[in-house]
This record gives sequence, C-alpha cells and structure tokens, in this order.
Amino acid sequence: MFITFLTDFGLEDDFVGTCHGVMKRLAPEVQIIDVTHGIRPGRVLQGALALANALQYMPVGVHLAIVDPGVGSSRRPLALRDAEGRIYVGPDNGLLLPAADRFGGLVEVRELANPAYALESVSRTFHGRDLFSPAAAYLAAGVALAELGPPVDPEALVRLDTPVPEIGQAKIRAAVLAVDRFGNIALNLAREHLDRVRIVPGMRVELAARGNRYYAVAARTFADASPGELILYEDSYRNIAVAVSRGSAASLLGVDEGNEIVLTVDSI
Amino acid sequence: MFITFLTDFGLEDDFVGTCHGVMKRLAPEVQIIDVTHGIRPGRVLQGALALANALQYMPVGVHLAIVDPGVGSSRRPLALRDAEGRIYVGPDNGLLLPAADRFGGLVEVRELANPAYALESVSRTFHGRDLFSPAAAYLAAGVALAELGPPVDPEALVRLDTPVPEIGQAKIRAAVLAVDRFGNIALNLAREHLDRVRIVPGMRVELAARGNRYYAVAARTFADASPGELILYEDSYRNIAVAVSRGSAASLLGVDEGNEIVLTVDSI
Amino acid sequence: MFITFLTDFGLEDDFVGTCHGVMKRLAPEVQIIDVTHGIRPGRVLQGALALANALQYMPVGVHLAIVDPGVGSSRRPLALRDAEGRIYVGPDNGLLLPAADRFGGLVEVRELANPAYALESVSRTFHGRDLFSPAAAYLAAGVALAELGPPVDPEALVRLDTPVPEIGQAKIRAAVLAVDRFGNIALNLAREHLDRVRIVPGMRVELAARGNRYYAVAARTFADASPGELILYEDSYRNIAVAVSRGSAASLLGVDEGNEIVLTVDSI
Repeated sequence: MFITFLTDFGLEDDFVGTCHGVMKRLAPEVQIIDVTHGIRPGRVLQGALALANALQYMPVGVHLAIVDPGVGSSRRPLALRDAEGRIYVGPDNGLLLPAADRFGGLVEVRELANPAYALESVSRTFHGRDLFSPAAAYLAAGVALAELGPPVDPEALVRLDTPVPEIGQAKIRAAVLAVDRFGNIALNLAREHLDRVRIVPGMRVELAARGNRYYAVAARTFADASPGELILYEDSYRNIAVAVSRGSAASLLGVDEGNEIVLTVDSI
Repeated sequence: MFITFLTDFGLEDDFVGTCHGVMKRLAPEVQIIDVTHGIRPGRVLQGALALANALQYMPVGVHLAIVDPGVGSSRRPLALRDAEGRIYVGPDNGLLLPAADRFGGLVEVRELANPAYALESVSRTFHGRDLFSPAAAYLAAGVALAELGPPVDPEALVRLDTPVPEIGQAKIRAAVLAVDRFGNIALNLAREHLDRVRIVPGMRVELAARGNRYYAVAARTFADASPGELILYEDSYRNIAVAVSRGSAASLLGVDEGNEIVLTVDSI
Repeated sequence: MFITFLTDFGLEDDFVGTCHGVMKRLAPEVQIIDVTHGIRPGRVLQGALALANALQYMPVGVHLAIVDPGVGSSRRPLALRDAEGRIYVGPDNGLLLPAADRFGGLVEVRELANPAYALESVSRTFHGRDLFSPAAAYLAAGVALAELGPPVDPEALVRLDTPVPEIGQAKIRAAVLAVDRFGNIALNLAREHLDRVRIVPGMRVELAARGNRYYAVAARTFADASPGELILYEDSYRNIAVAVSRGSAASLLGVDEGNEIVLTVDSI
C-alpha cells in the first residue's frame, strides 16, 4: 500500500522525518512517496495545485497533504474519498479539493475525531505528526474511513479561490501560479486562453510585469528558442508558462507567485 | 528492520545518497528513515537535540547520526545500546547521548574498531560512508554489538554542555536552541521555568533580543494570536518557543541559534 | 531490484516525487535510492562527475540520471549497459559516460524509441517523468534493453570535455570541479599531479584565486590543521581538494565551480 506525502515542512528540520517515523511505526509495510515538501510555508493554493497536478502520476493510495497555517484553530482535520477510490488526509482549508475534484469528486468525507487513530497526546501545533500521519497510516493499513470520525457534508468544506485570468481583445491579464527551481513561471492560463486571443506558435507576445515590458516567442519547448530568449509555452502540466532558454525567467522578470503578468499580442 | 538516519550533510551533494547506497548493498532489506539531513554544518548540539526529540516517534532500530566536525582526528567512532534496546551509531562527540539518556541510559558502548564491519578502504574525511554506514547496516542485519569492537567505559564518553537558563524574580535569561523553517524560535526553557516566574496564558511578556524589546502574549497555539502578533507557547516537543502568527519570529527578532533572549513579566 | 536516481531537479518542486510515483506505479517492488537531486540546474559535467563517484557505492541496478538542458531538442534519450552489468538511463549529452567508463565501458547502447515503454503522452519539457522514469522502471522490472529501441553506435555518443590541469615546474593551473555543502573545493587534480611538482604533506602551498593569494598546508585530513587554516588534501573520492578547518574554503577564496586556482610550491 502507498501513502503519498506533500507538505510545506521543508527538509531542514525533522518534521518530515518524524511523520515518516510515526507512519512506519503504525504501518511498517507501507511505502511512502514524498511528492514534495517544498511548498512555501503556509501557501495553501500552491500546495493544492501541486497536489492536483502530481496525483495523476501517483499510485492510488492514501494521499497525505499538509499545508496548515490554521493548525490549532477550529479548522477541521479531514479524511476524504474521491470517486476513483483515492483517500485524502489533511486540513479543511481547501488543500485537498482540487485534486479530489480532478478524480471524480468527493464520495465520502469524515472529520478526524476518533482518538483511537491519533497519537496518545495531540499537540496544538503539530497535527501533521499527531493526527494526520497516524490517520494516514491506519487508513493505509486497512482501517475503514468511517472509523475515523463522523461524516461531514461535502458542501460545507472550505474551498479556495483560484485566480481567474481576464481575457480581452488582444490582451490577457494573468497571474503567476508558481515558479519552479529552474525559474519557469506557470500562469493561470491554459492553451484555450491563448487561442482566444489568437496566439499561435512563432508569434511574438509582449509581457508586461512589474512595470517593465519584455518580448517572448510562443514556442513548444525550450529548445525552440535561442539561449537568453523568453518563450511562452504549454508546460508539462498543460499550464501556459514563461521560460527563458538556459536561464531563469522569474529572475529576468523579477516576478514571484501571485504577481500579475499582462500578455499582449504584438501587433507589429 | 529500520535504520533512522540524521546528519548535517544536506541534500545538495551526494553524501546522503552514497550512505544509503552503502547500507543497501550490505542490507538490501533494511528500511531507512531519513530523520533530517538539515542540521547546520558541524552543529553537534543542534543535532543531539533533534535526535533526542525525534526518536520517540521512530521505530526501535539502529539510529545512525553523523554531525562530525572532528572526522579524521582521534575522536572515537562508536556504537551504543540504550536500556530500551535502541542501538546508536556515530561519533564520540556528545551527539548520541541526549537521545540515549532519554531512553533509559547506556547499557553497552563499543568502539568501531573491527575492520570486518567497515568498507575495505576507510578515508580520513568521510567516515559516514566508510565506517558508520557499514556499521549501521551490519547491526541492522543482526550482527552483535560486541562484534564491532572493544567495550568503552560509558563514563569516558564526550558529553555536550547544554545552555542553562538563568531564572530571576520576574525575568528569565534564555538561549535560542533552534530556529525552524517557519521561523519559530525554540528556547532552552520548559513550562516549569515559566511557572517559576508566574507566566500564565494570556499574560504579556517582554522579550529583549539583540538590543531591542518586543511584546509577546503567552498562548497555547498560533491560532490564539492575531496575524503579526508574537506568542510565547509550548511547542510540540514541549520546549517553550516564540512564534509570530503567519510570519517568522526569527526574522522579526533577528535572532538565530545560540543568541540570548531575556523574558520579563510585563508589570503594567 | 534497485533504481538509483540523480538529477538537477531539486526538492522544492514535485519533479522528483512525480518521477518516483511514475516508477512505483510501473514497478511497485523496486527500491529507489536518491543519489542526489542537488546538481545545479543544467550542469551536466557536475552531474556526470557526481554519478561516476557515487556509483561505486551503489548496488548494481538501473541508474537513472537526468541533467538535461536540451530536453525537447533532437538530443537522443538513451539506455546503456556497461561491462559490469549496470544499466544507465538518461539523455545523450555526456552525463552517463564517465560512470560507464569507470565500470568497464559500454557494451550496449539503445535509443529510447519504443512508445510501449514511455507514458502515453510524452511532453516536450519533462522527459524525466514521461520517458526516462518509465524506461528505468521497465528495465528494473526485467524488460530487456533491446526492447527499448534501436541500437546506437557507442562512438556516436556525445562526450563531455573535462577540464585538464596545466602542470608546470613548481606550479599547477587547476579548475574547481565542485563545491560541497561544507565549502570544500574539489579540484581537477589527483595525487599524482601533486607528486609531479613535489608537494608532500606538511608543505606550504600558495593558492592564487580571483586575484588574491592564500597559503594552504598539504595535509591528510581536516583535523591536521588549526581552525581557520587552509588545507590541501586528497578527498574521499581521491580528488585533490581545498578545505578550511571548521569553515568554508569556497567562501574564504570566493570561488565556485569552473573558477581557476593556481597552486605554487612555496619556495621560502
């Protein structure tokens, strides 16, 4: 059985290792796949998008995800099941829902309320260790979802607002969803948004970001551009993204998650 | 069988991966749990505290820990067993003892001196790979501790000085033990220290750090404070810690491991 | 069966986790050893040297390595076998060859061209996920190398230029191959280069780097020097390296990968 594991815990501290220990004590045979622990601290939307993107490549199993700035407040701890049989464990702050929606939507939601499936002492600040990891391990070991606590109305769950692009005549006002290690900038756009303003491969597109203007070429991959040239392309998760061949587009444009980029079809 | 693994090696280089390889060649069936490799280079006390805190959540097994600025000197390489049956492997510089003390103390100490349980060629600068990882793998595979080398007097082992707080009338002079990814500041204080100066939840406490003064509220969890407000709370390892709701207390106060923070009960 | 895995993907994003997921879906029983994912983005030579150094400590298996700035271009995706039976998967940019050369050289080379052993949809920018990880998983699960695609002439593979030192009378012009987490500087030198200019342990050596001059003592390990003193030593991979006891030599000298350091035997 597999548990996939995504958090904003980083790897500098022992948070991730301690959760592995908790799970391995309870379910020694389970295999844990670390999706990433590099979600920036507290960025629930970034975590939700990464989870939704990555899960299609993961074995079906228990999917533990923790980006939980509200730990210790009244936000509910949850376990969910989607229509494809994947089970999710994490906080009720919207983190889990984009993934579950992608796999057919929710079919069962439980609040983690049964102390038999938590550590003996549950701290107020580390539910990842004391509540979520034990729940994931017990579920992976075969405990029924219904054992973990009372049902919750799926309609009552917290949902995230995803930033929506504004599409004009020959202009798109987009937002930066994520910047990766290579400095590639994922936008809140899909190919159909580019189609609506008639951007096609080879076309020059103006990018306005943080008061400056740049030119990118609509391309299919990094290799279609000369070193140093900006490209606008569909990334491997089918998001429209901005990259610079053999460099960091995020550094060049000076943008980060949440910033705005305005794309204008270059009329010249 | 489990080996837990904690170092200051980081994950940028291949040090950790190479040690995994060494262990898996010798003991292919062993499961390795990476506690953390983010201990700052050479900080033995930070490593010792992290190990002591984390082990209670780990399966009993072989506990390999390497923070070893004295590699290549005359410091001894060790394998230990505690009263609960946990086995530790690492350098004789104090790293392993706070953990072993917490689990009933030492019952057997051996110096790693038997070349049959090391790699064929032992370098002078990477005992993690050549000496400690093979020893851990052989122990996890069932080799008896006594096979690894001659006994060592537990009283002769190197021990670390842990910084001790000074407790006054309404004032505590504390030291920063660790700063985590979220900027939370763990102090060398437990709840009984706060009790002695009569700090109770809801009370305002003055913090003096690096020449500046701040106010924190004694609280139970992050969610008890408004965003941006400093709180003084018992963290999930039962250390007293300073945090700021949805922010980094370490950045706000400009403190790091080893710095001093003076807590004064606010008399107004 | 083992897959070892080395990339420049870092751990901030989900690239590594997603590749693990792909491999575990196809070969649930395979064990994956992460050699490192900290190769700097696009540095093929750094990745090639790290792989060649680390593999001698890894179980024989499938060795997946991805540092692939040319993804999406016409560079070929490859699977190779060396004379010792190790199988390599990665791009045709020189990354895999220093390792394969060390283990007896190539005996079989195939281009990854059979879509049966790739994901259904292969993106233009993430061959690690869509092409290389599936190939590695199928090979680890027992698929024959010949199944993956047509043979390639080993002589036609891309090879890297490794920087060659210039050895003078009492002077060596060397290049920095790598800087590790501890700030230790690995040079493109082996012990025989030092022998040729008659550098012996205990001797003082002048280092010229970035316009400044320093003195190092030829030593055997960190512990042979006083804190703060520079040493010139043979590191655990038998490269000549520069370190400073309890400090970062790279910070002190201000050098990084690719920089030049000139060693001169101190005549006084």
